[in-house]
Amino acid sequence: MGESAMPDPNLPVDGARVLADLTALRAIGAYKTGVHKPSFSEPHMRSIEWLAARLPEAGLAPTIDGIGNVFGTSAKPGPKLLAGSHLESQNFAGWLDGPLGVVYALEAARVINPDSSLRGAVEVAAWCDEEGHFGHFIGSRSYVGAVTEAEIDAARDRSSDRPMREALESVGLGGRPRVTAERGRHVGYLEAHIEQGRTLEDSGLKIGVVTSIVGIWQYRITFSGEQNHAGTTRMAIRRDAGLALAKFCVAIDDSFSVLCGPRTVWTTGRITLDPGAPSIIPGRAEMLFQMRDDNASVIERLEAQLRRMAAEVTAEGRCSVEVERIRTGAPALMDATFQDTIEAASARFADGKSIRMPSGAGHDAQVLATIMPSGMLFVPSIGGISHHWSENTDDADIVTGAKVFVETCRRLLVLAR
Amino acid sequence: MGESAMPDPNLPVDGARVLADLTALRAIGAYKTGVHKPSFSEPHMRSIEWLAARLPEAGLAPTIDGIGNVFGTSAKPGPKLLAGSHLESQNFAGWLDGPLGVVYALEAARVINPDSSLRGAVEVAAWCDEEGHFGHFIGSRSYVGAVTEAEIDAARDRSSDRPMREALESVGLGGRPRVTAERGRHVGYLEAHIEQGRTLEDSGLKIGVVTSIVGIWQYRITFSGEQNHAGTTRMAIRRDAGLALAKFCVAIDDSFSVLCGPRTVWTTGRITLDPGAPSIIPGRAEMLFQMRDDNASVIERLEAQLRRMAAEVTAEGRCSVEVERIRTGAPALMDATFQDTIEAASARFADGKSIRMPSGAGHDAQVLATIMPSGMLFVPSIGGISHHWSENTDDADIVTGAKVFVETCRRLLVLAR
Repeated sequence: MGESAMPDPNLPVDGARVLADLTALRAIGAYKTGVHKPSFSEPHMRSIEWLAARLPEAGLAPTIDGIGNVFGTSAKPGPKLLAGSHLESQNFAGWLDGPLGVVYALEAARVINPDSSLRGAVEVAAWCDEEGHFGHFIGSRSYVGAVTEAEIDAARDRSSDRPMREALESVGLGGRPRVTAERGRHVGYLEAHIEQGRTLEDSGLKIGVVTSIVGIWQYRITFSGEQNHAGTTRMAIRRDAGLALAKFCVAIDDSFSVLCGPRTVWTTGRITLDPGAPSIIPGRAEMLFQMRDDNASVIERLEAQLRRMAAEVTAEGRCSVEVERIRTGAPALMDATFQDTIEAASARFADGKSIRMPSGAGHDAQVLATIMPSGMLFVPSIGGISHHWSENTDDADIVTGAKVFVETCRRLLVLAR
Repeated sequence: MGESAMPDPNLPVDGARVLADLTALRAIGAYKTGVHKPSFSEPHMRSIEWLAARLPEAGLAPTIDGIGNVFGTSAKPGPKLLAGSHLESQNFAGWLDGPLGVVYALEAARVINPDSSLRGAVEVAAWCDEEGHFGHFIGSRSYVGAVTEAEIDAARDRSSDRPMREALESVGLGGRPRVTAERGRHVGYLEAHIEQGRTLEDSGLKIGVVTSIVGIWQYRITFSGEQNHAGTTRMAIRRDAGLALAKFCVAIDDSFSVLCGPRTVWTTGRITLDPGAPSIIPGRAEMLFQMRDDNASVIERLEAQLRRMAAEVTAEGRCSVEVERIRTGAPALMDATFQDTIEAASARFADGKSIRMPSGAGHDAQVLATIMPSGMLFVPSIGGISHHWSENTDDADIVTGAKVFVETCRRLLVLAR
């Protein structure tokens, strides 16, 4: 890393300012100790405006584009690093999931951009709908040019079924142009996030240096039997789609634990029995099933098992099972230089208490990684709790993460060719 | 039965009229080949008015009471037999479930009441909400005096959550008095219904002589684990309430099949995972579970097993399970003389193709049986399909059932002390 070759100033990172910004964002759409900010909700839009209003302090010109992405653009000469995360939340979820990375990026821009002695500038992005209320990564995918107008036409809120076009219109973004990446403008993309797991906490470490981001594969598994009367239909002749589903869930768990990789995770997040009445044997049942791994070949093996099991159940003849893949993941590798730089910055500002680890959660960085070098760092999550309003991180860890993040930005800009 | 002692006229049962009436009721709130008539819906109320308008043809004075029960009262001297069933349907369900018994009762009244050579009269009842949109058997239970005003205050539509009071107001029944049984007025209660199973069809029989009606026990089983992120939470440390529920369903099936009685049935009709998002491990899960048997001691044995299993899962410590009984069944025996009389009428009008059998479905007859001798007869269901719009019965079987039903009424009135 040529430490000796680069000056090593003590950056004026303002931890109190970082905590104050996060607290201000938490107050918008507060729910218990967390927030409720679905994409394009009133609190989400107010958070976007809050950010746009602060960007000038960092010498950045704000833009809100036609998909709800926020950008802060710098006129400072020299290399530019893109940094950010997201501002909307899962329903009734945590206050740091997203805002932490946005505020770190804002802080880095505030520290680096006005200082003519520091090379280049940090540009800030807040990607819309990382939490997937309307799709998956539709904001960052729009920026890299991977979203068609047709996809937006078809997108609907998974909770309210409201069309995305209607939501965009209602917040005044309808018809606005979408900003796409200017190739070559940025040396790369850096994002910070809470770990959302217990690896750092369990080992007393402060910084996670992300090596890769898992791919997410999602399936709709549908069971068809025969709807009938729950009192008059003898057990022997039933074709109970709900029972078939329950057995399938258990069979997945039994067989996957043998076939999976060291970090594979799988989850049944939703189950629906049709018609769902206490006195009616379900004739149809559906489960939403998800698998994650940073190794696509492991997933291929598990999906094959899933389809084999479905075929076996169908062959037994009582209920038929259909496995439909509705989302295909793409694991992403983080840039090696970014990893080394985060580690070096941790050595200076986190007593070297860092560890290289894969990300089990999806992040916009995996989308940005398709067009530029990208990196991510994690800070600890108390109890590993995530996607729940009780999610939290120690203030001291938040401040340490901010210092490591800003120092990483500074070093990446110095290293930039 | 003293056959020789009683005249055996050929009753003018009009099969075409019975089929025409059922077809008229099917046309009100038609859905595919079935009907959609939730309690107090517009098509349900029109069906009630349809019946009230026809009762005078049978020499009956119509009343619609404050819970939506319809009564046809006779001024004819001599013994009176109460007969009927219900007019509302399950959501998007069959055309005969309920109306068959009401139209049979109407036909019996039309044949017997105006004929001075026949002893006594048949009085008609259509019980409201037998299908339990707002509770269970609230109409017939009101008639036997088992429903308090407080129960009605608390009752809500299980689909829309609309309060029953509001529904009663909206159809103009608010504040109307509820009719309760005049003790001693009736020699008993007779109800006809489709079998809703395959016993008759499989054995080529035409009439089921009901010996008993099962009790229904219902439970809410709740699983509490820990809500967390579906990507970052390692499988080893998960407390997945949904997976615990699936395993419980399978365990019920395994153990119950050993402990159950010959005719016990059990069903999980509804499953809810909370929060129900694909990327979140469910922290809470709930299932609606139902058991039916005509032997309460079998149910006691199974409920004990249910609670034992719940305690075991809770003791393992990953998820806690709570079993809450939300409905307690009461098996009912049908009157022996009623059974003999239905059998004798079948001998005369159904070539003796009858069989004694328990009812796996609940019926208003089990409620009426708590205050007067009661009996039920079944006609075949094609494929045993029930609680589904495709439910059906051959016209010929419907007409045979009508003849057996009217003849049973005539004999019961002759036998009346």
